[in-house]
Amino acid sequence: MPTDRPLRTERFYYASDSGYNVEVNQQRLRDDILANASFGDLETDEGHGRTLLTGTAADQAARERLVQRLQDAGLTVRVDPVGNIAGRWVPKDADPAAPPVVMGSHLDSVPQGGIFDGPLGVYGALEAVRTIRSADISPACPLEVVSFTEEEGGRFGIGTLGSSVATEKLSVADALALEDDNGYTLKERLSAIGFHGEDKITPSSWDGWLELHIEQGTRLERENLSVGVVDSITGITNCSVEIHGESDHAGSTSMSERSDALVAAAEFVQDVESVATEIAADNPAAVATVGQHDVEPNIRNVVPGSVTMQLDIRGVSEGTMDRLVERIHERLKQIEQHHPVTASLTRFRNDTPSHMSDQYVTTAVEAAETRGIATKQLHSAAMHDSANISTETDAGLLFAPSEDGISHNPREWTDWEDCATATHILAVSAAWLASES
Amino acid sequence: MPTDRPLRTERFYYASDSGYNVEVNQQRLRDDILANASFGDLETDEGHGRTLLTGTAADQAARERLVQRLQDAGLTVRVDPVGNIAGRWVPKDADPAAPPVVMGSHLDSVPQGGIFDGPLGVYGALEAVRTIRSADISPACPLEVVSFTEEEGGRFGIGTLGSSVATEKLSVADALALEDDNGYTLKERLSAIGFHGEDKITPSSWDGWLELHIEQGTRLERENLSVGVVDSITGITNCSVEIHGESDHAGSTSMSERSDALVAAAEFVQDVESVATEIAADNPAAVATVGQHDVEPNIRNVVPGSVTMQLDIRGVSEGTMDRLVERIHERLKQIEQHHPVTASLTRFRNDTPSHMSDQYVTTAVEAAETRGIATKQLHSAAMHDSANISTETDAGLLFAPSEDGISHNPREWTDWEDCATATHILAVSAAWLASES
Repeated sequence: MPTDRPLRTERFYYASDSGYNVEVNQQRLRDDILANASFGDLETDEGHGRTLLTGTAADQAARERLVQRLQDAGLTVRVDPVGNIAGRWVPKDADPAAPPVVMGSHLDSVPQGGIFDGPLGVYGALEAVRTIRSADISPACPLEVVSFTEEEGGRFGIGTLGSSVATEKLSVADALALEDDNGYTLKERLSAIGFHGEDKITPSSWDGWLELHIEQGTRLERENLSVGVVDSITGITNCSVEIHGESDHAGSTSMSERSDALVAAAEFVQDVESVATEIAADNPAAVATVGQHDVEPNIRNVVPGSVTMQLDIRGVSEGTMDRLVERIHERLKQIEQHHPVTASLTRFRNDTPSHMSDQYVTTAVEAAETRGIATKQLHSAAMHDSANISTETDAGLLFAPSEDGISHNPREWTDWEDCATATHILAVSAAWLASES
Repeated sequence: MPTDRPLRTERFYYASDSGYNVEVNQQRLRDDILANASFGDLETDEGHGRTLLTGTAADQAARERLVQRLQDAGLTVRVDPVGNIAGRWVPKDADPAAPPVVMGSHLDSVPQGGIFDGPLGVYGALEAVRTIRSADISPACPLEVVSFTEEEGGRFGIGTLGSSVATEKLSVADALALEDDNGYTLKERLSAIGFHGEDKITPSSWDGWLELHIEQGTRLERENLSVGVVDSITGITNCSVEIHGESDHAGSTSMSERSDALVAAAEFVQDVESVATEIAADNPAAVATVGQHDVEPNIRNVVPGSVTMQLDIRGVSEGTMDRLVERIHERLKQIEQHHPVTASLTRFRNDTPSHMSDQYVTTAVEAAETRGIATKQLHSAAMHDSANISTETDAGLLFAPSEDGISHNPREWTDWEDCATATHILAVSAAWLASES
């Protein structure tokens, strides 16, 4: 929800450059991330990964350490019913009732994931608060650090679970009733580890939100940048497409007698690519991919009887995404007209695009510029808690570079120097936003 | 090897129509096929199947019963080193040194195969000999019934194994040294079941060969015919095709940056279909199929990195098959030119087409016509022992209809009436050929 508050003017630069000695402690940030990496630890030949799923002993340990570190830094901790954790600091000159500037991310991982995806944003937020506290600054509003439950959907199957509940896209009751593969409910597991709390964490009451996350792409790395400022998070639509022909003997079925599902599917795959390329000419973030493509019976000497495909369609404009799906569907219907097959398309997921707040984006870009740190604005093609928050209050999302763009893998890596630089911009941005709020 | 002997003239029809009371005993044929079906028996919900692999106890029992049934009918049995079995009958007025007219097929099955594929031709041949013996006919040459080892390649991996050895396409030593998946050699297994013989079975010394087999297609069923006369067996060429692009994130890789292997493969699949359709316009038996098509990594939100395909190409002319492969390969090279992918095509199998003897084809067609049985000439798109024999002597191949074209499956079925009718034409053809040879 971009606000219409006036953007910062030059007055602010001077204040920041003179008075603010905001300096991130890289060693402390690194120690926090590495200590957190020991929970669900996974040492592989490829790198240091972790598996941190909601409600496990590893999750409990990671959460307890975070609470301790928040308290060590002088923050007051709250836990809500779905285990979202908030640490709050009210600066001495701040109005305790003022809407807080909130930073954070998540601590959970995918199975066999990396150590930065999530924790960099949580411990980066804590480091930002510690940095602001020790600097010569007294923000006008409270600052909070938030860690959302199960952003990855790795155990209870719903991504951005905690922020969905906090933003009322998912009810507390429905969330707590979610079951894992073994029939354990989220409520049982959170109670068991002592993180089924009673406090409230409500983004709609915040001044705004800043998340630091790894890019999971190579755009920053390619331009040798330590930080990027996200302006949009693409929406994701998934469709499943089925094409049914007739499975036949590859020798005794003449070319004219065939109902070859693969030949029809081949035309469709090309259609998806050509429609997306055409639309992407004016909408560079728009993409459409046939990523999954399964042929039945898939035997060399049998004419393919059916093909099932899974499509991934993204864009930063809902209209563009709808247009992609419509035009792809039209092409599929045309294929049914001139091939002896039946076909169907089911759009089974539609997460609309999210837009970061102009004010928060501009603040982060200016924070980097005034500190002499090169940056760029970019969109995120991956989903983040920030997408949920953006419907309730101003949201901003910063990226730190990912080596080779790898994530969700023990090979995931971000240089400590880049972690510190991105956290520095997070801290400066938060300080500015909290000072003028 | 079609001969240039003159084709039969009318003189023969009268002889056959007056003197030959060739009548197949349908019940006896049925009993033989069902008794044989008990070896490697497989009762399924879908039908009565069997698994009869070379050198197993089931194979031993099936072979021993065949030998017994050949001997019961007054035939003298021989077994060659690779277990091919021949039963010989020298009619009382025949020259024992004259080249024999030979009939037969195979007893082995694919794993979980049907009860007709192979045994119909072996026991049909025996039934034909028994029928001729009990009729008022005294052929001028010996008649033989042959059962070839492992036509299906189900255990030692090489299809038409026995006939390949008999026609010297595969040496006895190489064949005997073949190993199954557990390291057993063909020699060990044949010795163990008592069918590693020392006799000779040499098609080059035969007058000719007639095989009765199920169609494994629907052409006869669709025209309600009980018997078909095969004039050619298509050659089979197999190619493997690999297309390599680059696996990427489906969200963060823009349309213009992609090396999508599936998009390139889709163009290729269509090329194969269009090239084959064009060539089939003048060569109806020509077909090309992308039957197997595997995408890597095949994950919905990942741009496909590679596609591996297996092609099946058939035709009754070697030149046509070569032209198909050449033109398909040209198209693949063009795809490499205008897509950011690398591609390769490997032609790893090339079985050339086979042609049945004009004389044997004409004899069978005329035998059906003079008996008032409707028939048609057709090609076979499946491989048979007859293909091997056709390079050594005259060969003929008769088809009985397959219900729904199903074979290599417990659902495989041919009506007993059709079995008998097709065997009747086999017997009449053999009687004619043996009488004039």
